[in-house]
Amino acid sequence: MSSIIKSVKTEYYQIPLAEVLSDAKHGDHTHFELVVCKISCHDGTEGVGYTYTGGTGGRAIYSLVEDELKPFLLGKDASRISQLWEGMIYKLHYVGRGGLLSFAISAIDIALWDIKCKQLDQPLWKVAGGMNDRTRCYAGGIDLNFSQEKLLNNIQGYLDRGFKGVKIKVGKADYREDVQRVAAVRELIGDDIIFMVDANYSLTVETAIRFAKAIEQYDIKWFEEPTIPDDYQGYARIAQSTSIPLAMGENLHTVYEFNYAIQQAKLGFLQPDASNIGGITGWMKVAELAYANNLPICTHGMHELHVSLMSSQPHAGYMEVHSFPIEQYITQPFVVDENGLAVAPNVAGTGVEFDPSLVGQYLIKQS
Amino acid sequence: MSSIIKSVKTEYYQIPLAEVLSDAKHGDHTHFELVVCKISCHDGTEGVGYTYTGGTGGRAIYSLVEDELKPFLLGKDASRISQLWEGMIYKLHYVGRGGLLSFAISAIDIALWDIKCKQLDQPLWKVAGGMNDRTRCYAGGIDLNFSQEKLLNNIQGYLDRGFKGVKIKVGKADYREDVQRVAAVRELIGDDIIFMVDANYSLTVETAIRFAKAIEQYDIKWFEEPTIPDDYQGYARIAQSTSIPLAMGENLHTVYEFNYAIQQAKLGFLQPDASNIGGITGWMKVAELAYANNLPICTHGMHELHVSLMSSQPHAGYMEVHSFPIEQYITQPFVVDENGLAVAPNVAGTGVEFDPSLVGQYLIKQS
Ligand SMILES: [Mg+2]
Ligand SMILES: [Mg+2]
Repeated sequence: MSSIIKSVKTEYYQIPLAEVLSDAKHGDHTHFELVVCKISCHDGTEGVGYTYTGGTGGRAIYSLVEDELKPFLLGKDASRISQLWEGMIYKLHYVGRGGLLSFAISAIDIALWDIKCKQLDQPLWKVAGGMNDRTRCYAGGIDLNFSQEKLLNNIQGYLDRGFKGVKIKVGKADYREDVQRVAAVRELIGDDIIFMVDANYSLTVETAIRFAKAIEQYDIKWFEEPTIPDDYQGYARIAQSTSIPLAMGENLHTVYEFNYAIQQAKLGFLQPDASNIGGITGWMKVAELAYANNLPICTHGMHELHVSLMSSQPHAGYMEVHSFPIEQYITQPFVVDENGLAVAPNVAGTGVEFDPSLVGQYLIKQS
Repeated sequence: MSSIIKSVKTEYYQIPLAEVLSDAKHGDHTHFELVVCKISCHDGTEGVGYTYTGGTGGRAIYSLVEDELKPFLLGKDASRISQLWEGMIYKLHYVGRGGLLSFAISAIDIALWDIKCKQLDQPLWKVAGGMNDRTRCYAGGIDLNFSQEKLLNNIQGYLDRGFKGVKIKVGKADYREDVQRVAAVRELIGDDIIFMVDANYSLTVETAIRFAKAIEQYDIKWFEEPTIPDDYQGYARIAQSTSIPLAMGENLHTVYEFNYAIQQAKLGFLQPDASNIGGITGWMKVAELAYANNLPICTHGMHELHVSLMSSQPHAGYMEVHSFPIEQYITQPFVVDENGLAVAPNVAGTGVEFDPSLVGQYLIKQS
């Protein structure tokens, strides 16, 4: 079979959220952006890849895929993923090095893995390792703007849908309000539900330490992004002052950033996102770093894809089921089983194909 | 006077180079890209800012300025540069954090400083500090593809133009060829001309150490980017094995990256580029870090602007006069005095205004 790349098509969507969702640093989310990349080979195999954003930068990512990376990819061998991945990074390294370039490469890399899986006629969870076909997960709320009553209703909704873990946003102007919300959620969910908090890097190191001490009594699985992701040593200072493990990753966009974070930030959980760490290739590199450092591997966002990656790994922690409902726009259903485990799709490929009848109305431009 | 922003105009150019220029990691350069941002205030003041690339990513930067940052800027107060700088970073932080976002912010930030200088009726070299009105500099060749004969002719041309320092590219397949070229250049220029080498992060740590040992005898001012910029500890290993100081900065796009590099990479010279570190605001932050760490501050690229920043600082090292001749497209002449010092323009503003009659033919798109 010939894996030579025949065509690359790029699509850019803006998809509205059902309601406004807020966190402490990004403010209000009214929609998310989706950049889809479809790669066809001469043997007829088509791979679908994608990335998403919280609402900004998608058109620049579209430009990187369409104007810069597509001309590089045409005529190349899609089966040499490592060679293409390195080539894309160094073609745009001067302007890139993480950031938006990692998003663009992610969309392409996922399409290349989709092609690989389809040519193997295997699901991604097997091709990426095959440890399990399902994985632990939790519902990640974006709920800082919710009243406490609405917050509790939202959490109850997660429990009703069978989730065994929940996460809430923190980062109110007065951290004592966050403490109250944490106490109320723990009272609602009881002792057996996993419970995390996420400050979206909005706190000073000093406030993060104060807040962590105040919520230790509520059995918090992890404290996510207490302060800016660049301050590895600040993370270490927080970690040393509390028994709650720290988590980060959604804002680390190169394997080198993860390496430094592992070495310096005293993290308990790593959360790479295949949509912004260079796709499945980048996510797997971080997963191997986590393995060697005895750290559980977790995720941020795009659960409809991460479910296969997390299932594949021996050291999987907890997968975020994100509040951006990308899974509502694809053909394959997203399944959580009776034990609260997310089930990897058992079809050849990544299992993520967008349904034009659902997503088409939100298309802004395409190549 | 009212500094409220009335309009933002963005221009994207592709400007051909007179001949193909090569380095060890980016390969052939045939043109450079220029993204210009023009900001007008209600009081009539107009500021001009810009960034450039080695040929890729400019359209994504254009999208960031035009689609994302312009709507954020309109109606805001141009005189609150720090507030706008933080706002731009955090508006796009999730997709940004360095990389292309830093280029886009640079173009805008430079325009804001241009406005500030014009409203003060002062040249940038004074507004940024005013230490001196001129600065030491060197000619930075992009010449890895030149034969040794052509290389020496090119260097002689720099000497004829009055430069007191020169830099060549290294990173040939066999490092012993680089050693030969270094020896030939030192023989040509004599003992009193400053001489640097630049590998554009193409070497392994092991080869970099071997090469550095071999060229120590030629009095090399610095060894620039021996290996990938992400490997701070690799830089430290190289630095500890040679008496030649190391330099880097053109690929560090946040102040945090510079901070870690200073702490870990054992650098001798820092080279921030105002076109990709967040403009003059970002460059000044790195300059202050350099000062506190007793390191000379240097630059990469856009010498027509950096001449004012370098002149302004007490700890200025050596400014690169880059081979991308942006200065040929602006109204103000770039002057090197009889002592080989680059002279800061003594006009209100940054002193960089593009001449439409020179640059207009290369305009690809504008808002
Ligand atoms: Mg988070
Ligand atoms: Mg250089």
